[in-house]
Amino acid sequence: MAERYSDPQLKLFSLSSNTEIAEKISDAANIPLSKVSSRQFSDGEIMINIEESVRGDDVYIIQSTNFPVNDNIWELLIMIDACKRASAHTVNVIIPYFGYARQDRVAQQREPITAKLVANMLVKAGVNRVVTLDIHAVQVQGFFDIPVDNLFTVPLFAEHYLAHGLSGENVVIVSPKNSGIKRARSLAEVLNAPIAIIDYAQDDDSGREEGYIIGDVAGKRAILIDDILNTGKTFAEAAKIVERGGATEIYAVASHGLFSGGAADILDTVPIKEILITDSVKTKERVPENVNYLTASQLIADALIRIHEKKPVSPLFNLQLPTEE
Amino acid sequence: MAERYSDPQLKLFSLSSNTEIAEKISDAANIPLSKVSSRQFSDGEIMINIEESVRGDDVYIIQSTNFPVNDNIWELLIMIDACKRASAHTVNVIIPYFGYARQDRVAQQREPITAKLVANMLVKAGVNRVVTLDIHAVQVQGFFDIPVDNLFTVPLFAEHYLAHGLSGENVVIVSPKNSGIKRARSLAEVLNAPIAIIDYAQDDDSGREEGYIIGDVAGKRAILIDDILNTGKTFAEAAKIVERGGATEIYAVASHGLFSGGAADILDTVPIKEILITDSVKTKERVPENVNYLTASQLIADALIRIHEKKPVSPLFNLQLPTEE
Amino acid sequence: MAERYSDPQLKLFSLSSNTEIAEKISDAANIPLSKVSSRQFSDGEIMINIEESVRGDDVYIIQSTNFPVNDNIWELLIMIDACKRASAHTVNVIIPYFGYARQDRVAQQREPITAKLVANMLVKAGVNRVVTLDIHAVQVQGFFDIPVDNLFTVPLFAEHYLAHGLSGENVVIVSPKNSGIKRARSLAEVLNAPIAIIDYAQDDDSGREEGYIIGDVAGKRAILIDDILNTGKTFAEAAKIVERGGATEIYAVASHGLFSGGAADILDTVPIKEILITDSVKTKERVPENVNYLTASQLIADALIRIHEKKPVSPLFNLQLPTEE
Amino acid sequence: MAERYSDPQLKLFSLSSNTEIAEKISDAANIPLSKVSSRQFSDGEIMINIEESVRGDDVYIIQSTNFPVNDNIWELLIMIDACKRASAHTVNVIIPYFGYARQDRVAQQREPITAKLVANMLVKAGVNRVVTLDIHAVQVQGFFDIPVDNLFTVPLFAEHYLAHGLSGENVVIVSPKNSGIKRARSLAEVLNAPIAIIDYAQDDDSGREEGYIIGDVAGKRAILIDDILNTGKTFAEAAKIVERGGATEIYAVASHGLFSGGAADILDTVPIKEILITDSVKTKERVPENVNYLTASQLIADALIRIHEKKPVSPLFNLQLPTEE
Amino acid sequence: MAERYSDPQLKLFSLSSNTEIAEKISDAANIPLSKVSSRQFSDGEIMINIEESVRGDDVYIIQSTNFPVNDNIWELLIMIDACKRASAHTVNVIIPYFGYARQDRVAQQREPITAKLVANMLVKAGVNRVVTLDIHAVQVQGFFDIPVDNLFTVPLFAEHYLAHGLSGENVVIVSPKNSGIKRARSLAEVLNAPIAIIDYAQDDDSGREEGYIIGDVAGKRAILIDDILNTGKTFAEAAKIVERGGATEIYAVASHGLFSGGAADILDTVPIKEILITDSVKTKERVPENVNYLTASQLIADALIRIHEKKPVSPLFNLQLPTEE
Amino acid sequence: MAERYSDPQLKLFSLSSNTEIAEKISDAANIPLSKVSSRQFSDGEIMINIEESVRGDDVYIIQSTNFPVNDNIWELLIMIDACKRASAHTVNVIIPYFGYARQDRVAQQREPITAKLVANMLVKAGVNRVVTLDIHAVQVQGFFDIPVDNLFTVPLFAEHYLAHGLSGENVVIVSPKNSGIKRARSLAEVLNAPIAIIDYAQDDDSGREEGYIIGDVAGKRAILIDDILNTGKTFAEAAKIVERGGATEIYAVASHGLFSGGAADILDTVPIKEILITDSVKTKERVPENVNYLTASQLIADALIRIHEKKPVSPLFNLQLPTEE
Repeated sequence: MAERYSDPQLKLFSLSSNTEIAEKISDAANIPLSKVSSRQFSDGEIMINIEESVRGDDVYIIQSTNFPVNDNIWELLIMIDACKRASAHTVNVIIPYFGYARQDRVAQQREPITAKLVANMLVKAGVNRVVTLDIHAVQVQGFFDIPVDNLFTVPLFAEHYLAHGLSGENVVIVSPKNSGIKRARSLAEVLNAPIAIIDYAQDDDSGREEGYIIGDVAGKRAILIDDILNTGKTFAEAAKIVERGGATEIYAVASHGLFSGGAADILDTVPIKEILITDSVKTKERVPENVNYLTASQLIADALIRIHEKKPVSPLFNLQLPTEE
Repeated sequence: MAERYSDPQLKLFSLSSNTEIAEKISDAANIPLSKVSSRQFSDGEIMINIEESVRGDDVYIIQSTNFPVNDNIWELLIMIDACKRASAHTVNVIIPYFGYARQDRVAQQREPITAKLVANMLVKAGVNRVVTLDIHAVQVQGFFDIPVDNLFTVPLFAEHYLAHGLSGENVVIVSPKNSGIKRARSLAEVLNAPIAIIDYAQDDDSGREEGYIIGDVAGKRAILIDDILNTGKTFAEAAKIVERGGATEIYAVASHGLFSGGAADILDTVPIKEILITDSVKTKERVPENVNYLTASQLIADALIRIHEKKPVSPLFNLQLPTEE
Repeated sequence: MAERYSDPQLKLFSLSSNTEIAEKISDAANIPLSKVSSRQFSDGEIMINIEESVRGDDVYIIQSTNFPVNDNIWELLIMIDACKRASAHTVNVIIPYFGYARQDRVAQQREPITAKLVANMLVKAGVNRVVTLDIHAVQVQGFFDIPVDNLFTVPLFAEHYLAHGLSGENVVIVSPKNSGIKRARSLAEVLNAPIAIIDYAQDDDSGREEGYIIGDVAGKRAILIDDILNTGKTFAEAAKIVERGGATEIYAVASHGLFSGGAADILDTVPIKEILITDSVKTKERVPENVNYLTASQLIADALIRIHEKKPVSPLFNLQLPTEE
Repeated sequence: MAERYSDPQLKLFSLSSNTEIAEKISDAANIPLSKVSSRQFSDGEIMINIEESVRGDDVYIIQSTNFPVNDNIWELLIMIDACKRASAHTVNVIIPYFGYARQDRVAQQREPITAKLVANMLVKAGVNRVVTLDIHAVQVQGFFDIPVDNLFTVPLFAEHYLAHGLSGENVVIVSPKNSGIKRARSLAEVLNAPIAIIDYAQDDDSGREEGYIIGDVAGKRAILIDDILNTGKTFAEAAKIVERGGATEIYAVASHGLFSGGAADILDTVPIKEILITDSVKTKERVPENVNYLTASQLIADALIRIHEKKPVSPLFNLQLPTEE
Repeated sequence: MAERYSDPQLKLFSLSSNTEIAEKISDAANIPLSKVSSRQFSDGEIMINIEESVRGDDVYIIQSTNFPVNDNIWELLIMIDACKRASAHTVNVIIPYFGYARQDRVAQQREPITAKLVANMLVKAGVNRVVTLDIHAVQVQGFFDIPVDNLFTVPLFAEHYLAHGLSGENVVIVSPKNSGIKRARSLAEVLNAPIAIIDYAQDDDSGREEGYIIGDVAGKRAILIDDILNTGKTFAEAAKIVERGGATEIYAVASHGLFSGGAADILDTVPIKEILITDSVKTKERVPENVNYLTASQLIADALIRIHEKKPVSPLFNLQLPTEE
Repeated sequence: MAERYSDPQLKLFSLSSNTEIAEKISDAANIPLSKVSSRQFSDGEIMINIEESVRGDDVYIIQSTNFPVNDNIWELLIMIDACKRASAHTVNVIIPYFGYARQDRVAQQREPITAKLVANMLVKAGVNRVVTLDIHAVQVQGFFDIPVDNLFTVPLFAEHYLAHGLSGENVVIVSPKNSGIKRARSLAEVLNAPIAIIDYAQDDDSGREEGYIIGDVAGKRAILIDDILNTGKTFAEAAKIVERGGATEIYAVASHGLFSGGAADILDTVPIKEILITDSVKTKERVPENVNYLTASQLIADALIRIHEKKPVSPLFNLQLPTEE
């Protein structure tokens, strides 16, 4: 069995939202999870007690901020506050799924920019560094003035598809909405495949019209790619359109699987062969049978070690992914 | 019917936690509630849209941060962010029940000070002023560097008890735990009554020993006073002790009634004649039959108008309460 | 002749980069430009002297931060500092062209996020509000925690094309690179036209491969849309591809015309009938003959007045543009 | 003789207010005091010169902020500024007596919260960590967002009383005012004794009425406990009441002895056998004969070493004090 | 009798250091002094209570920070804190004598920059604007990022000397140390007189050598000018040197008269005809017979009114002083 | 050949303004320059890419901010932002020539304090320490709250003049304007020479009158000293006056040589034997024949090493310069 990672001043904690990935990261990095007690009282208030000294330590906290997002963010903020007051040297948070990331701009007059608010709250609470996994919009890095390392999932996915022979001209990478084209382009680059886009004449939640394909999918195996699989509607709609467009097989891939609002029921009805997802989110919702989870834990563990040892993180993407955005 | 309050640059909003008190405050102040839409998506994220212009306005937002406390705080933070970006002149929050206020110090090594964290988050989000109602510890005012107006409930309660003849030497004001003595003293002052305290040899949640009375309750009508009625256990235990001590009648009063964790069941079994509570919290829990709600809406409305008109708030307490802490 | 705008506490200043649009805005708003002297010494240092009192005033400063971008940003920062020290009540900057906006994310390891840096510098210097015109990425609004009003140019352009009969199914809106699809979608919405995209297998400056169209342009009049026309290469390349794709006529439209690096020479060689541009940038470079400037001054003037009078800005977009991103 | 503490990057300084305790701490920790010159000119201004390099060092500064409190705070602030500009790695202040701590809330309308002001000033001047000794209100920790280690004196006192046989049911711990009950509870816990409280019908400085005991002292040895012995009036009054209540012997204990305003004269007249005090304050006032100083220097030295070596401070309290607030 | 100044939202307060000038300013501006109680307890702590509402008001606080400088600065900081928490609209401080202003740079390694520290403390406490009178170094304005209005005293002094016929070539303005040459130049400009300087080979407090004149004073009436008259040694030494140099009459003028450390005794022994001083400082020290106080109260009152009415302050200097630094 | 400096976590970078001095510093310190690419696009925007990892490193950046000052400051700010986001441990900037330092105060109403603005921008961008060389006004150190090490050039110059026999009573140090007297005093101290000053009746740029000498230069060798040689006019004018005053030889020395605005032409016409200058500025202007460059690179390299090794910097000045201001 591998030896425990040797720096006693590195402390790794998992909060409540996704203890599964935390344990895998702990295993992959060979760093045991330190003890923290987090209780939620009957009045809903969260009480945290760090059960070992963090004085002078570099603390790494793993917490995805999916449902229940507000509880999970508060648990994280409270933990940061506790670490800072307990004299941690640095407080680093690893947020595999970063909730509210889609609220990154004022879409309608008088809307908040909640992704910025989350960033401000984390920083004010005392965070020193953030690690994210395929964050919704890369501009969110700029919402922080502290270092943010955003890990890419495309290499993980590309490796999988290459291993299964999904590459080249007979494959098409489809962005299921026009705002996701950069991500499609990124996967297409590695798989040497063309891209297509599903466009909607009016692209907002209410009153979404019938979509249509821009680009060519006929006779090809189509891979739908998105960053967040939430209610499944975007993939379901896209799958139908792509099928009508003549695609021979349909795959779907997303970095984060929320499966909220009855997503499984919706996805069960559409002709997608496999839905590839990382384990960034531990959902309590039902997940469709055809979901295939790829763990991001090794990637995160490698990043964690490199960050702690003050080595560049970029080599983690170089070999697998020749060019990323 | 009274005329609408005349300043069009004052906008009053209610968020989700307690629309009842918000409507009463709106009525009492004669200021209509402005429109805001707040939705929670299936993934738990809250989306706020302010449905009328607040550009250049003094915005007042009413939100209690009881259960679900984390959702309610986030809804408030997001609303503040939206108001600020929408060019509100000032953002004032009225928090009748201020959640997490009891986490105001490091009780055990490596604990957070969550009440300070909440204060920091509100300020960082952009709040200009806070109005609270009988906040748990007055020191929490010092957690802010912006103006905080803390409204006292003791005058409300005193008026009620005086009207019902509960005053003088035959009454005793009992603090059900040793940390609440200041509040007991404050009510005792107005009712010209002595005080007593329930002390516990080991005063923490786990392993709480049998309590005992310090002071004299025999033959008196006892009023138990606390700021927060949470699970009801503190009042229930105190009522039993006071009964054993020979009190002739037992009353209980608290500013905030959470009634969480089956409080009603516990309180139904003890000999308390009446539980007096303000409407600061709108709970979904069952509430005991003997609860009597006094509305704090007129007090809050008066404070709001005085604050907006730049008049001192102190006269609201002067007549009823000659001396407060 | 129209009367001067009546609030003496509103002061409008123009700095050096684009006095032409400043004068047009001044005329459109009927607010005279206040006097400021800005000199650049032989050692390159800029010295500003505000030549009338701004004590207690709401100051609006017009400055585009195009070439020489660093001089123009410093001139703006120095002016903000001077206004703040001279006791201005608020300092509002109107930045028709916001330089460095494209550096909004870390594209390569160890890159800066210069757009955020600019935002931070403006805020630290003392700015209270920013007005931009079709800023490169809407997420840049979130780089600020002060109010940012981003004015849309699509209504201006749509009005022009509708007046010239360019709408409907015979027109296609083409995004000349895959990252601009949202802007194309926005114009397409108003013109009731389909969209197409020029995609590049490897979408970066060095080693850009031959692009190709996704979508259908054959037999249609194509409108290429981008936000910034810099060296002209993106439009030139796109025009050639669209022509090869069978478009019958080619138009191009961009909010900001820099025309740097010999853009005119490049654009003279391609079959674009008309290049539509706002006057956000006053360039010293040669501009092609087929450029048609639409002034954004009325839009900016209207926004300025609405902001100052604390009225919502959104109606400026409502009539012309039913739905924007 | 013990060896000097080995880390050359730890520098310990004493300012002017209490060089005696500083020397004892220096001895106990085996860390020599570094040289600093602090002069006060004839115009009252303090000039500090640090006489050895602190570049890159962890600096610990010992300063109580008792009388002359404003001079002592300023001397501390100036020293912090000097350390920071001289490139100290961290600036840690040990404040055995923290002046202004009682001004921790707005007691009357339009009062300052001077304890928060002091906290803000220290942080703004550049402090990285604060160590206090039995600070007046634990909530003051929350006035800081940097780590604060508050050392408890109850274990010191308990050890003393246990050694002298003052424990068990024949002893009663008396809080001489109702706000001090928590401290009394804490000592009572270790001594296995009951508690009692002196209550005043109107508990403010002006117009303080005759007090009375709540609880039972007859036939018991009473220990009056408070945190600050200022003018001695509180203890004097309490001693008289407790004597009248039938206590057989009266002791008094306070963490901090200011003895201002003629305290010695007042205390000489009342039947207190021994006044136990730490050496947190070096007063120039006359001190009563029956005062017994216990040094807190070993406790502080141990804390200092643990903090510097990044070990938890809590074990310093664990053995002596099973439960503290 | 003149009418009271009409804006009820302007509140003028005097703190303890110089109530005399505050009353004169109040008279000159026709604004009554509002009520504030400031007590210093026997333990040295200052307690402030503002005795009328300042909610929404523009508060102006007059406080010189001469001896006891640390008490006076703290009284000011506490008052600022109280005003801010009491919801003042703006807090403006008028500091006729700004203590610690000479500590404006690191003269020796590891010295503080206490003037900057004072500026930081004032701003952190919540001040919105500072008004100073002939501050020691004009660069101190840059220690603030809020508006600072520094009022010039040279016009006051020039008017006096012109009225007494001290101008032209027979007069020489002497800077008694080489760092004060700018101030001498400024007075010389108005009086049309040449300047001279007293230089010391080694210009520091310890080991100051015999000084000598640079420039010509023989047969002239010499006016020694400095900003601060502290111990009187600088003027005394200069007077002797100037007398030896052949000056026919010697005058001295300083903006601020501290007279600390037995200045009167020193100045009584030297041949200075008249020492001109403003009333910025109310000293408890003995003042020499030949001191002539000119009040700065009208100048300050005029500035206060202009600032409050949002008019430029510069005209206050224009008429009397054609060019100032 | 000397060994490379051994700490791999120290990274030294040169930006564009003065790569010559950077290389000399690199050689003197034996620390290779790390790789950074800085390009300026055709639209004037600067793009920086750090070409080696700086994660966890102490980064030192060399950049003078002379002409083109705004480009050079922005390049520096962008580099700081990049370093911070790339997880540098500390970012230290070495600014041999600090542009805008003369704008250190409000000389005219409504002027900016641009030197403070530069300081604020550097700090906000993320700088941890600043090293300057003979900065214009020592008060600028106080514009920062981070450590600033200002290196003195007088020892360098003094050594040169002593070696050439320019010392003692036959030499006179002349400040060419009255504000530079401190610098003259400082050099005079080491050379044991008297000082003189050129005074102008009206000392501002416009309308500068004929100057005259205060002090005695007849029959002496005069050394004119200033910090910045900009257009050469100040030295040229002073040289003429000093020549008329009977000086036998005239030398000039300045820390920084900008030579802007045709300085060489002006200086060629006046009787200055040698102009001594450090290599802080790499100018593209023509430089007069009689300029003698002394490199400051060894001094800066020594300071850099001392700072990095946490040793005091002061010994660098002690031997050569017994007393400095």
